Amino acid sequence: MTGVGFLGYAFMGRAHAHALRRLQSTGDDPPRLVAVTGRDAGATRAFAEAFGFARWATDWRDVVADPDVEVFENLGPNAVHAAPTIAAARAGKHVLCEKPMGVDASEARAMLDAARTAGVVHMCGFNYRFLPAVRRACEIIGAGDLGDVLHFRATYRQGWGADPGRAGAWRFDAAQAGAGALGDLMSHVVDLGRHLAGEFETVAGEITTFVPGRSVDDAAAAVVRFAGGATGVLEATRFATGEMNRFTWEVNGTRGTLAFDLERLDELWVNGRRELVMPEGWWPAGHGLAWEHSFVFELEHFLAAVAGGTAVAPHGATFADGVRAAEVCEAIARSAAEGRRIATTGP
Amino acid sequence: MTGVGFLGYAFMGRAHAHALRRLQSTGDDPPRLVAVTGRDAGATRAFAEAFGFARWATDWRDVVADPDVEVFENLGPNAVHAAPTIAAARAGKHVLCEKPMGVDASEARAMLDAARTAGVVHMCGFNYRFLPAVRRACEIIGAGDLGDVLHFRATYRQGWGADPGRAGAWRFDAAQAGAGALGDLMSHVVDLGRHLAGEFETVAGEITTFVPGRSVDDAAAAVVRFAGGATGVLEATRFATGEMNRFTWEVNGTRGTLAFDLERLDELWVNGRRELVMPEGWWPAGHGLAWEHSFVFELEHFLAAVAGGTAVAPHGATFADGVRAAEVCEAIARSAAEGRRIATTGP
Amino acid sequence: MTGVGFLGYAFMGRAHAHALRRLQSTGDDPPRLVAVTGRDAGATRAFAEAFGFARWATDWRDVVADPDVEVFENLGPNAVHAAPTIAAARAGKHVLCEKPMGVDASEARAMLDAARTAGVVHMCGFNYRFLPAVRRACEIIGAGDLGDVLHFRATYRQGWGADPGRAGAWRFDAAQAGAGALGDLMSHVVDLGRHLAGEFETVAGEITTFVPGRSVDDAAAAVVRFAGGATGVLEATRFATGEMNRFTWEVNGTRGTLAFDLERLDELWVNGRRELVMPEGWWPAGHGLAWEHSFVFELEHFLAAVAGGTAVAPHGATFADGVRAAEVCEAIARSAAEGRRIATTGP
Amino acid sequence: MTGVGFLGYAFMGRAHAHALRRLQSTGDDPPRLVAVTGRDAGATRAFAEAFGFARWATDWRDVVADPDVEVFENLGPNAVHAAPTIAAARAGKHVLCEKPMGVDASEARAMLDAARTAGVVHMCGFNYRFLPAVRRACEIIGAGDLGDVLHFRATYRQGWGADPGRAGAWRFDAAQAGAGALGDLMSHVVDLGRHLAGEFETVAGEITTFVPGRSVDDAAAAVVRFAGGATGVLEATRFATGEMNRFTWEVNGTRGTLAFDLERLDELWVNGRRELVMPEGWWPAGHGLAWEHSFVFELEHFLAAVAGGTAVAPHGATFADGVRAAEVCEAIARSAAEGRRIATTGP
Repeated sequence: MTGVGFLGYAFMGRAHAHALRRLQSTGDDPPRLVAVTGRDAGATRAFAEAFGFARWATDWRDVVADPDVEVFENLGPNAVHAAPTIAAARAGKHVLCEKPMGVDASEARAMLDAARTAGVVHMCGFNYRFLPAVRRACEIIGAGDLGDVLHFRATYRQGWGADPGRAGAWRFDAAQAGAGALGDLMSHVVDLGRHLAGEFETVAGEITTFVPGRSVDDAAAAVVRFAGGATGVLEATRFATGEMNRFTWEVNGTRGTLAFDLERLDELWVNGRRELVMPEGWWPAGHGLAWEHSFVFELEHFLAAVAGGTAVAPHGATFADGVRAAEVCEAIARSAAEGRRIATTGP
Repeated sequence: MTGVGFLGYAFMGRAHAHALRRLQSTGDDPPRLVAVTGRDAGATRAFAEAFGFARWATDWRDVVADPDVEVFENLGPNAVHAAPTIAAARAGKHVLCEKPMGVDASEARAMLDAARTAGVVHMCGFNYRFLPAVRRACEIIGAGDLGDVLHFRATYRQGWGADPGRAGAWRFDAAQAGAGALGDLMSHVVDLGRHLAGEFETVAGEITTFVPGRSVDDAAAAVVRFAGGATGVLEATRFATGEMNRFTWEVNGTRGTLAFDLERLDELWVNGRRELVMPEGWWPAGHGLAWEHSFVFELEHFLAAVAGGTAVAPHGATFADGVRAAEVCEAIARSAAEGRRIATTGP
Repeated sequence: MTGVGFLGYAFMGRAHAHALRRLQSTGDDPPRLVAVTGRDAGATRAFAEAFGFARWATDWRDVVADPDVEVFENLGPNAVHAAPTIAAARAGKHVLCEKPMGVDASEARAMLDAARTAGVVHMCGFNYRFLPAVRRACEIIGAGDLGDVLHFRATYRQGWGADPGRAGAWRFDAAQAGAGALGDLMSHVVDLGRHLAGEFETVAGEITTFVPGRSVDDAAAAVVRFAGGATGVLEATRFATGEMNRFTWEVNGTRGTLAFDLERLDELWVNGRRELVMPEGWWPAGHGLAWEHSFVFELEHFLAAVAGGTAVAPHGATFADGVRAAEVCEAIARSAAEGRRIATTGP
Repeated sequence: MTGVGFLGYAFMGRAHAHALRRLQSTGDDPPRLVAVTGRDAGATRAFAEAFGFARWATDWRDVVADPDVEVFENLGPNAVHAAPTIAAARAGKHVLCEKPMGVDASEARAMLDAARTAGVVHMCGFNYRFLPAVRRACEIIGAGDLGDVLHFRATYRQGWGADPGRAGAWRFDAAQAGAGALGDLMSHVVDLGRHLAGEFETVAGEITTFVPGRSVDDAAAAVVRFAGGATGVLEATRFATGEMNRFTWEVNGTRGTLAFDLERLDELWVNGRRELVMPEGWWPAGHGLAWEHSFVFELEHFLAAVAGGTAVAPHGATFADGVRAAEVCEAIARSAAEGRRIATTGP
């Protein structure tokens, strides 16, 4: 009956709240929705009532200070990731922070330091690691069935970049978001690259802003080398006209090939064969999973770690993984600015 | 705050319970989970506790008699559809019954009569009508954008027929299920055929049982004529080896073509173009829907009808639609037995 | 250096002529293009010159009488299949006739009788048997890798039925064509059904003409039983709006499933895995084959049979197969007319 | 009746010979196959006889000196591109050279200089420009229907790199081939990038040799900027395990998106809609084209240019385009070696 507090009630707030409510009816240790904080009192209150949070507040310090809150989830814009999350960790709360962590790698490192010092469980919200097809891919690679990984290619294509009204305005403001497609989409690409193909060694990238005057990037791309010898091609854009949420990736190994498309997320293509992946205890295969279910699996995993049953890593992303994603993204941006390959080996 | 009672806690019980819990956090009028009944006391109790039902019982009469139950959902095996549903209707409960309604058309008609006599709201659980892509297909056809419907072809392929352990044993027992693929899968095909292409006029069918000694059919197929002039080809099988839940259909009209695959249920193919369909208030398109969400939309629609806001028909299936699906399935079986085309025009 | 004579220079004439020219540069025994006959002198002459036929004539008897013609290919409209083909067989020519053979099964039987009596090699132009993916499917089934065949489902969808200008006008004239989609498309469906799933036992069908006043059918469909115990669903239509040449079929066996789409004819889907099939001596797999290549393989096979190396059957279709296709199509038509299941077991 | 001479009788020799033979029966001005040269006398003679070349020789100078040869096609390994092609141009022959032109950009430039000085028609064998779907893509982009081009992403995946026996051994020998995947596959990617998205401005690349001791690269990748403002991601590999000939590309413009897959080369995806592209005078759409047909279109175009009817550019690739492809590939290699972005603006 772990008590959970939220910062944020918008896109990610809804996704996490639905996931926790689902876990209330399926998990051994159903979570309690204790408190939520947001800047807009009316919206925060409505959200709390809809999902059954016991309390709500407009000052995040109230949630951080709440003794019933054991887990603090930071689901707000990137600019409000660092301070509340650090405060929560210092208050002894276990912490989950949405990706990308903070507005830059420096903030991410500060959050990691705080969590480590406090000794709390920490997770960075790279939810795609928890999709059953991705988990199955990890198992296949981990078992050696793909041989040595040679190539990782991934492209995250969205098409709404010319239509800022579709997403929160904060996403186009460097002060609020830190970066554009680089932080929002490329961070997912980088994290799955590390998860599936191993640590990055070098990157050579390009960053583009198509809309004059926009303070964040619209698209980012890189060719990379992994420490294990693989090479990779990464791309993230908000200007793939007509595309919705098309995150595709492929892994070529010496013994086989995996392929995935987020818009058909039940499906893992294993050596040219379509497998419909469905976890135990859900539905018969072919009855479908959705994007929102990634959060159910993510939070189930995180709450188990909080309860002491399992570690967040290596299956889930810790704050250390959040730091690495931010570092690689920054290396891509620096490579683009300086016109040269950048080394970015992890710890 | 409509009070809901369930008969059944298995496959359909879980699907409906998850859907109702989701509606508790999104609807204007959150439903209350009042009571559930099942034959296995331990399982019924565990289900009630997991999903937050206030009460549970092993005698369905207790749920039917419960004054807090305003809506009675019959989610049990086909053989226990008729009596409890009729009793519930007579007790003034609004009733939702899973498909196929009862073990034959005669039972379905008795349920319809009871619901009409009682004046309660009634719905037959043809959940696929509520998939956003199917709803969009109906809009396109209804708007005349497809012109006159000429062809409807649909095949529901599952592959577990040789492995009865995968599904409930009752599904292979004629006394419990009434029919096999004909009732379980073809009923969906027939209902969507009526929904998309209009009322049936004639059917010519074949019914097959591949496994010696099995009392229900394993596969069914028919060529049909619709009252509106279209022709159709329908198939349902549990012996499409390797297939999971592959319900595909196409509609050809004089002005265009629609195509759908249940295993990629976000996608409607409109004149060769893939559209990702996502309803208002959910997630951005491309973030996916799952099979289980069909029940959320279905129950939202039903509860709105109970609350008086809307009618179940024509968007949702009433008991009259359940009767028609049963009649058409029986006509297919009769055509197979008699080796001739059978007229089956509706009321 | 087998000498070949053609009746017909239109759609099929071009397809066969290109195929023979290709065989001139790849086969061990390059064919000679001796003579072509057609009703339009100018068009026949132009065709002869383009493809290098030594002679041309407007009277088919000239080609039948030509001593250099060893093989007579009848590539004209259905109504001119029977008499010239029979005359050619009686003149001792080996004969290839396009499908459907003649305007009805009676004509097909007369052609078969003539060829048998004359003792010449005979082939019916069911070219899809020769697609490498289809041939591979036969091998898989023949080797028992699919187990017992349970289901065959096939739909041949074209969409130009409302636009008769696209195809030859004779195709809409019962006197010239015999039938519409039934003869043109369903004959292919029936032949591949026999080839992949075995002989037909019964059919129950529907035939439709959507365009008032048209003397041939626009669409045909049937549910069928095979002698080996499988069931099937067959459909052919010229009114699948927007579709080009979409002949899809699937075979479910007790041990696996095959799937094919003519519009992606390199690809055979074997148990959910896409295989790119390419015959020996052609290009590396993935470099593609086209519809027209089916005629290269067909004619290579036929000329080898003429040269005495191999038999046409069972890989290729003989006139006996052409008769059976016509008989099954007629049984479908009769079933539609009489509203009952028709037995149509072969010899 | 243009007379054509070949250098080379292997993979490309066969592809071009089949194409010319097809043009003999369809073009207004059927080409004559005059002479072929190759190092292996027996193989050269057999090739000449199979395809109907009037003469053959083991010394390429004989073909270059042949007065009946008006067009000289260099279809040999990269190392024998330069000298014979230059000699042929100086002898006043129109020249077609397979890609990549020579073993490096320097050789390519020498060939271009010779052709320009001689005033002969010249074409570089980038056959994929001539696929009908690619041509249609160019038309769409040229008509402005895609708006401004923002992104070009292309990956050429083959999987036989660990199995050198599958292709000619010369392809793995730097002295014979110049480069590996970079020259063989990336040159196609670069040429289509220029063709669809415009001239390159900068590249940042990585080159990899997975097999120890191999003198050519196995894989290459780059992020690029185009002069028109678009960005691109390019990849070519012979180590995409299990892939055959998977050259996929996408173009995102401000108003739409195009997508293509070489293994389904009839299909152009235009704003999410599949179009089956078939040129006039071929078959009805849906009847398929194959890789080998690209050479028919290419040679038809080249022979028309030789006959004076049309220019090779901009639709076809001239030697200047061959030079640019080589320069961009070299820039990718230099970028990889030096670890920095390289400017590579064209003339």
